Amino acid sequence: MERLPVAVLGATGAVGQRFLQLLEGHPWFEVAELTGFSSAGHLYGDVVRWHLAGNPPDSVADLRVKASEATLQSPLVFSALPSTAARELEFDLAAAGHIVCSNASANRMQADVPLLLPEANADHIRLIDVQRRRRGFRSGAVVANSNCTSMPVVMSLAPLRPFGIRRVHMVSEQAISGAGYPGVASLDIIDNVIPWVSGDEGKMESEPFKMLGDLCGDEVAWLPAVAAATCTRVPVIDGHLVNLSLELAEAPALDDIHAAWREFRGPQPVPMLPSAPDKPLQVFTQVDRPQIRLDRMAGNGMSTSVGRLRECPILGYRFAALTHNTIRGAAGCSILNAELLAVQGYLGSFRPEPAAVHA
Amino acid sequence: MERLPVAVLGATGAVGQRFLQLLEGHPWFEVAELTGFSSAGHLYGDVVRWHLAGNPPDSVADLRVKASEATLQSPLVFSALPSTAARELEFDLAAAGHIVCSNASANRMQADVPLLLPEANADHIRLIDVQRRRRGFRSGAVVANSNCTSMPVVMSLAPLRPFGIRRVHMVSEQAISGAGYPGVASLDIIDNVIPWVSGDEGKMESEPFKMLGDLCGDEVAWLPAVAAATCTRVPVIDGHLVNLSLELAEAPALDDIHAAWREFRGPQPVPMLPSAPDKPLQVFTQVDRPQIRLDRMAGNGMSTSVGRLRECPILGYRFAALTHNTIRGAAGCSILNAELLAVQGYLGSFRPEPAAVHA
Amino acid sequence: MERLPVAVLGATGAVGQRFLQLLEGHPWFEVAELTGFSSAGHLYGDVVRWHLAGNPPDSVADLRVKASEATLQSPLVFSALPSTAARELEFDLAAAGHIVCSNASANRMQADVPLLLPEANADHIRLIDVQRRRRGFRSGAVVANSNCTSMPVVMSLAPLRPFGIRRVHMVSEQAISGAGYPGVASLDIIDNVIPWVSGDEGKMESEPFKMLGDLCGDEVAWLPAVAAATCTRVPVIDGHLVNLSLELAEAPALDDIHAAWREFRGPQPVPMLPSAPDKPLQVFTQVDRPQIRLDRMAGNGMSTSVGRLRECPILGYRFAALTHNTIRGAAGCSILNAELLAVQGYLGSFRPEPAAVHA
Amino acid sequence: MERLPVAVLGATGAVGQRFLQLLEGHPWFEVAELTGFSSAGHLYGDVVRWHLAGNPPDSVADLRVKASEATLQSPLVFSALPSTAARELEFDLAAAGHIVCSNASANRMQADVPLLLPEANADHIRLIDVQRRRRGFRSGAVVANSNCTSMPVVMSLAPLRPFGIRRVHMVSEQAISGAGYPGVASLDIIDNVIPWVSGDEGKMESEPFKMLGDLCGDEVAWLPAVAAATCTRVPVIDGHLVNLSLELAEAPALDDIHAAWREFRGPQPVPMLPSAPDKPLQVFTQVDRPQIRLDRMAGNGMSTSVGRLRECPILGYRFAALTHNTIRGAAGCSILNAELLAVQGYLGSFRPEPAAVHA
Repeated sequence: MERLPVAVLGATGAVGQRFLQLLEGHPWFEVAELTGFSSAGHLYGDVVRWHLAGNPPDSVADLRVKASEATLQSPLVFSALPSTAARELEFDLAAAGHIVCSNASANRMQADVPLLLPEANADHIRLIDVQRRRRGFRSGAVVANSNCTSMPVVMSLAPLRPFGIRRVHMVSEQAISGAGYPGVASLDIIDNVIPWVSGDEGKMESEPFKMLGDLCGDEVAWLPAVAAATCTRVPVIDGHLVNLSLELAEAPALDDIHAAWREFRGPQPVPMLPSAPDKPLQVFTQVDRPQIRLDRMAGNGMSTSVGRLRECPILGYRFAALTHNTIRGAAGCSILNAELLAVQGYLGSFRPEPAAVHA
Repeated sequence: MERLPVAVLGATGAVGQRFLQLLEGHPWFEVAELTGFSSAGHLYGDVVRWHLAGNPPDSVADLRVKASEATLQSPLVFSALPSTAARELEFDLAAAGHIVCSNASANRMQADVPLLLPEANADHIRLIDVQRRRRGFRSGAVVANSNCTSMPVVMSLAPLRPFGIRRVHMVSEQAISGAGYPGVASLDIIDNVIPWVSGDEGKMESEPFKMLGDLCGDEVAWLPAVAAATCTRVPVIDGHLVNLSLELAEAPALDDIHAAWREFRGPQPVPMLPSAPDKPLQVFTQVDRPQIRLDRMAGNGMSTSVGRLRECPILGYRFAALTHNTIRGAAGCSILNAELLAVQGYLGSFRPEPAAVHA
Repeated sequence: MERLPVAVLGATGAVGQRFLQLLEGHPWFEVAELTGFSSAGHLYGDVVRWHLAGNPPDSVADLRVKASEATLQSPLVFSALPSTAARELEFDLAAAGHIVCSNASANRMQADVPLLLPEANADHIRLIDVQRRRRGFRSGAVVANSNCTSMPVVMSLAPLRPFGIRRVHMVSEQAISGAGYPGVASLDIIDNVIPWVSGDEGKMESEPFKMLGDLCGDEVAWLPAVAAATCTRVPVIDGHLVNLSLELAEAPALDDIHAAWREFRGPQPVPMLPSAPDKPLQVFTQVDRPQIRLDRMAGNGMSTSVGRLRECPILGYRFAALTHNTIRGAAGCSILNAELLAVQGYLGSFRPEPAAVHA
Repeated sequence: MERLPVAVLGATGAVGQRFLQLLEGHPWFEVAELTGFSSAGHLYGDVVRWHLAGNPPDSVADLRVKASEATLQSPLVFSALPSTAARELEFDLAAAGHIVCSNASANRMQADVPLLLPEANADHIRLIDVQRRRRGFRSGAVVANSNCTSMPVVMSLAPLRPFGIRRVHMVSEQAISGAGYPGVASLDIIDNVIPWVSGDEGKMESEPFKMLGDLCGDEVAWLPAVAAATCTRVPVIDGHLVNLSLELAEAPALDDIHAAWREFRGPQPVPMLPSAPDKPLQVFTQVDRPQIRLDRMAGNGMSTSVGRLRECPILGYRFAALTHNTIRGAAGCSILNAELLAVQGYLGSFRPEPAAVHA
């Protein structure tokens, strides 16, 4: 099968690098174009300051960084742009016919942009049709993924929707890579905890509830739960852990919740996509798991780990959820979103066979 | 003034060392005796593996570690013993006439043992009279301080009692020194968060509410609030930070809470005690404070830092509170307790003048 | 091909766990037996406190830990035993017909025990014949690998032997996993450097020079170089970095050294073994590489990374060398040694085809 | 005694903050003026992002940051400027009559600028007379201190000059605060070692040898030793540790070296200066000391800790030396230099009494 050429915007940044790492050897997509702030005209391998283990993939090291997004040829574009840069550009690219799978926060809350997490809300993909109709796009579209700290929340709550989610109290402990590069100064975080993460509390109190909502006609009806989020930064490299307390309308036994988590796979064809983990949720019953360093790479960084489920004297239930913030929490989710778009026919004539690949 | 000879039990451990460091140069107390597991007969300076900065104080390095608590001469005894060792021994020492200020958890919840934090509940000291009467002690007594993670909770909630504390949701981020030495293995915590701290959640859900209770006759009536605690371990050396959400009966403005914190000093003579900080509470209005490394030493480690006060969509109020876990959270509080006992006449004929000293 | 059953001794420790992780899915070897201190009779998955990312491999979680090494059936035994336990036991097992590939230090310096690093001294394998003859072993033998800090030294010096190695000055910066579990207390190493590692300086000043020596008849003639080693511990999880200064008899250009490193593969059939990395040495010319976190996993943890080659005003040459201490520096090297033994006919009738597998 | 008004240039940076912290409550000097990049016109407390523990001293929080150095009134100026900013400005200020005690590297190697470390080379202060004569300064002068990593080298070698220092091999392990703020990105250093520190190796191979040289007439004759330095960065907050190997012309016993270190005080009146530590060198004989976190604050951060003295098979002697890089290694040394200038009559009519103060 011929692979689809894709572009990565903001390829020199922390999330951009993760896109390239995860796309190396991807069965369907092949990185053909790159953009990166102030690096235009240079070979990627010469200008990138690579922060991930090892070296940039050989296949992209020799790509020349493009000066402008205007000349992009790739039908599929992954955006790791800063929010201000992304706001208009992503819609411009969609207008020009590109499918933009974006990690930027700029357009997430637009009513006609799906905030897509395939296991949780694959049907939101149909917002693309609304978006195209409203904005006059023919073949292009903007599809977003959530911020990295919302991801463990949505992944762990999605299977619990049948129990009636009423109130969600969240306290996060977030890795430094969530701030990009150079991001958090080492003098600010070694032997320290910072009790605040700029912008994230607002996102956690809104994004998950759009994502967990129901698509009704042309709109997503948000999940009507009350949310409170406190975000803190801790000295770990990768992995965001969230301590959740939860009020449910129903009164499931703890075992019912464990069972809902264990059985959760997401709707077909999601489990067959090449980047989908075998188990979206890894469930721990040991008292001291999940731990960030031990469990962030579960399912190649695409699984969310949940544990410490127990009763909460105030809200009813509490547990911890952990997700790798730059894989499932960012680039990995964007890629999984693109895979879903591909099999659902949103990438033009490109139509891979999911089952064959994943097996 | 002649200083009172004191003994430190469990002097080689993490909290024991902090006792010795804080008692070095103390205006009222002088370390005269030491015990330490399996070190009996040796000079302290030869056997201690000192974990704090610098070296053991010269004044204790040449003390010989005692084989048995039975021979202790000091009227005042600080206990940094493990819980199982402390349970009976502390009462035996009290029966023998010693005042035991204990950091051990063993006897904290005994109804006739004051769980003392002078700024918050100095009047609980009168439980000593009950204890002596019930147990037949003449001049001895056991006085406990709380576990280290309860400390920031009690310090920050004490001034808010007039508003009616109804529900308290707590998520802690705790330093490694809270586990003693060798305590947490480095392989378990570098680049990691552990979502559970053995034993601490139960303590946080009980101890603060005894401490914040009212002494009614011979008993403490616990504060009747609903509590939920989640404890996590983070890779920092010292300092426990707790993220609190709070439901109050009244509806104070945020400024009212700020004001209550700023004005809080505790009852006389507490502010005049030599180890009392100028401000029990250091109040931050910057969005990113308190931070563990920057603020744990506020008030020489005896102040609690509070910040991030804001509304909570679920419980009404939320904020962060930080305390140095081995100073105010352990040895420092025991010493402050002993100072209060001294000026209140519980140390026999030893009766120092607080005002003179602190000024 | 039927896989050879192997036993792992000391399977619950840090190196033992790495053995199991690396043997999971090994093309030639299959873990059939385990021993572990004080865990006898239990299922491995129930008793191990797993420190590596994720969980114990499914294939070993259900193995029952054996009470005694006396009943081992596996022809090949990997030893991650503590030194004192290993000293006699390993020879007893060899006498009973087992091939013991050992990471323990106990028997490394025995004159008839090969201290094997296949790329550097594959021919030392013939010491097995000497060992069998001297000790009366028929089919068994003890084969050792070096301590973890010697590994980057030997790997980087092996290709430079033609230039005449005269003096080697080494200063190491070593990861905490080198001390096993629980090993280094977190209070001892977070925000700290310890300027000494128990036992390692002596090993670094001796082991590499046996390894780099020539097999002459029945004996290894050590490389006659003067060595000085200083070992320090730094707060990193995995990866030992050594800063070397070097005096050579010849005066090669820096480019000659770079070329010798780049071309180094070790003798056939070593490059064809399943655990052999494509490049034993990864050579960096960037000024700030190798870095421990970025480069420890080069070649799946089996490559040594070298860089910062430049002139030394005192000894002539200097550079940095980095090796993953529990993979190539321990379990991984033992497994590679066993693979070499297999293809050289030292594992009885078991004789795999290396080329087929590695390709 | 009236305190001398002083200015701090670059007051918002990492070293600038340390200047302010150390000058708080200084018996002779009082901070009266501040400059700071892009903060002109604002109150210092409003614009500084304070990285040290606690908060900016009250006495400087209300100072208004000055727009230009041209208007400075203070006779004594401490410079924490970046090198490029410092190069000409410092001499301009000296020409205008200011004494500039500088931590900047820009002018350290000018032949007529003393690179002053009072215990080691107090007599170099007389280069000021040369500088004034050559450059036409009447009352001003520029006095530099060395880079932070040279400090432990010079402090530990100064007492060994009588033994004839011939060759010095150095491998450093340096804290992140040495790179200023924001300095080292946390993604670059947590769980990592970087084997290179920009610019420091050249400084370590030159500065110590100017400092250890003899003042002969109008010039310093550098110590004619051969030097080799390798600099690495480790994840610690403060404190630079250097592993030294040393060739001496004489063959002192190890005890002779220990004795030379223990007796070292520097010439009068240096030991009487207010910032001088009781012991410039803290000597350890324990095998695992000095340790960065435990020993960096020795002598309030003004002492250098030495230990691990033993024979070196290659160069004869080896040991470890540790200095707090932003106290003695930067701001603290500048202040001590200024104190020496004061008592030697280089600060105009300001002439404090050292003995009285330090006692």
